[in-house]
Amino acid sequence: MAKMSEHTHKQFDAELEAIRTGVLQMGGLVETQVANALEGLKTGNVGLLDRVIEGDHRINLLEVDLGEACQHIIAKRQPAAVDLRLVMTVIKSISDLERIGDEAKKIAKAGKRLHAGEVPFMPRVELGYAAGLALDMLRSALDGFARADVTNAPVIKSQDEEVDASFKGIMRQLITFMMEDPRTISNSLEVLFIAKSIERIGDHAKNISEYVVFLVQGRDIRYAKSAQSAAAKGE
Amino acid sequence: MAKMSEHTHKQFDAELEAIRTGVLQMGGLVETQVANALEGLKTGNVGLLDRVIEGDHRINLLEVDLGEACQHIIAKRQPAAVDLRLVMTVIKSISDLERIGDEAKKIAKAGKRLHAGEVPFMPRVELGYAAGLALDMLRSALDGFARADVTNAPVIKSQDEEVDASFKGIMRQLITFMMEDPRTISNSLEVLFIAKSIERIGDHAKNISEYVVFLVQGRDIRYAKSAQSAAAKGE
Repeated sequence: MAKMSEHTHKQFDAELEAIRTGVLQMGGLVETQVANALEGLKTGNVGLLDRVIEGDHRINLLEVDLGEACQHIIAKRQPAAVDLRLVMTVIKSISDLERIGDEAKKIAKAGKRLHAGEVPFMPRVELGYAAGLALDMLRSALDGFARADVTNAPVIKSQDEEVDASFKGIMRQLITFMMEDPRTISNSLEVLFIAKSIERIGDHAKNISEYVVFLVQGRDIRYAKSAQSAAAKGE
Repeated sequence: MAKMSEHTHKQFDAELEAIRTGVLQMGGLVETQVANALEGLKTGNVGLLDRVIEGDHRINLLEVDLGEACQHIIAKRQPAAVDLRLVMTVIKSISDLERIGDEAKKIAKAGKRLHAGEVPFMPRVELGYAAGLALDMLRSALDGFARADVTNAPVIKSQDEEVDASFKGIMRQLITFMMEDPRTISNSLEVLFIAKSIERIGDHAKNISEYVVFLVQGRDIRYAKSAQSAAAKGE
């Protein structure tokens, strides 16, 4: 393998730094989208919800740009070891970030239907706790990526379980609601899908945090329990 | 860049072929999981549903194995052009396939709750049409990947729209159901989430079909409308 000149080396470093900061930029944008969607849902600020819906577009384009930058690095630089793990982490993280963006857009659309409907009515279910947790998980995961620090990964994992439990609680509340007053069914389902989106945002944040563990420690912890199993050999 | 020896070249080809067939093997497994989950749901075969739930594990391990094989190729072979696009396509496709596997598992779990519940009751909603479409999309997408053929991509796209429309129809039927008899609400929600899983399977199949277009034509069509937009430059 050809040894890189100092010039090439510097360029390579700059390219790695560019995808790294690209993820953080994209992550910040996604975080804002989620926060605005939840804020608009809470306050009925339809203008804010519209901005979220329109803003999703930029996140999609960032995903394409960063994906291409990763391909360029792979094709030109033959990254190895931690550099390769960074590229892989970026490729995976931008996919999860893009999907978080999609969930923010879905929340914003559902928010508009709830607030702008003929009979504006919002089932009195507390989404704030789960939403706060999911946003916190996203921030922590991006922070872990920024500092290549895995110490918060176990916290994020337990927060994810809390979000899941919270989703189930919200579903039970909504079922009670709907049974007491069947006229609330349509809007309750809107809220149920919003809760589901929040739960998924937590899942994606946990994914990103697991990629950071892979980045730092060089191992894939997603199915750690079973990594030695022979099942993968398959028939 | 060093020119590869014939021996290395043959090895490289074998490695590319291995990840290609790996995706098809994983895809076949995922397809079976989805078909079995839907079959078990329909017939109440709890043993079959259990097998789906246990079988998800193997899919997760295949994802890890194939992901590592892709990393190996990137690190050792410096793939370029269509070879690099194949590696990128595999990295993305296995993520979607793994998520389809998760949806199959969710359907199986919901199926068990519906059939093994204290009051086994299944809202009379026709899921078969959407399910058949989603399975067909998955098969077509994998077939397109196998033959590096993009001719079915527009068909898959329009099938995806049909699945989405079908999901909305199912939701409307379920709402009517629940309003007429609030005792059906819990089970109707199970069916609603099953329908949502079917819709997501269609989304993932469409993603895979879009990666195949990228593989064959070298362009990312996911956000094609806006590819030239300057928005991605961001501030």
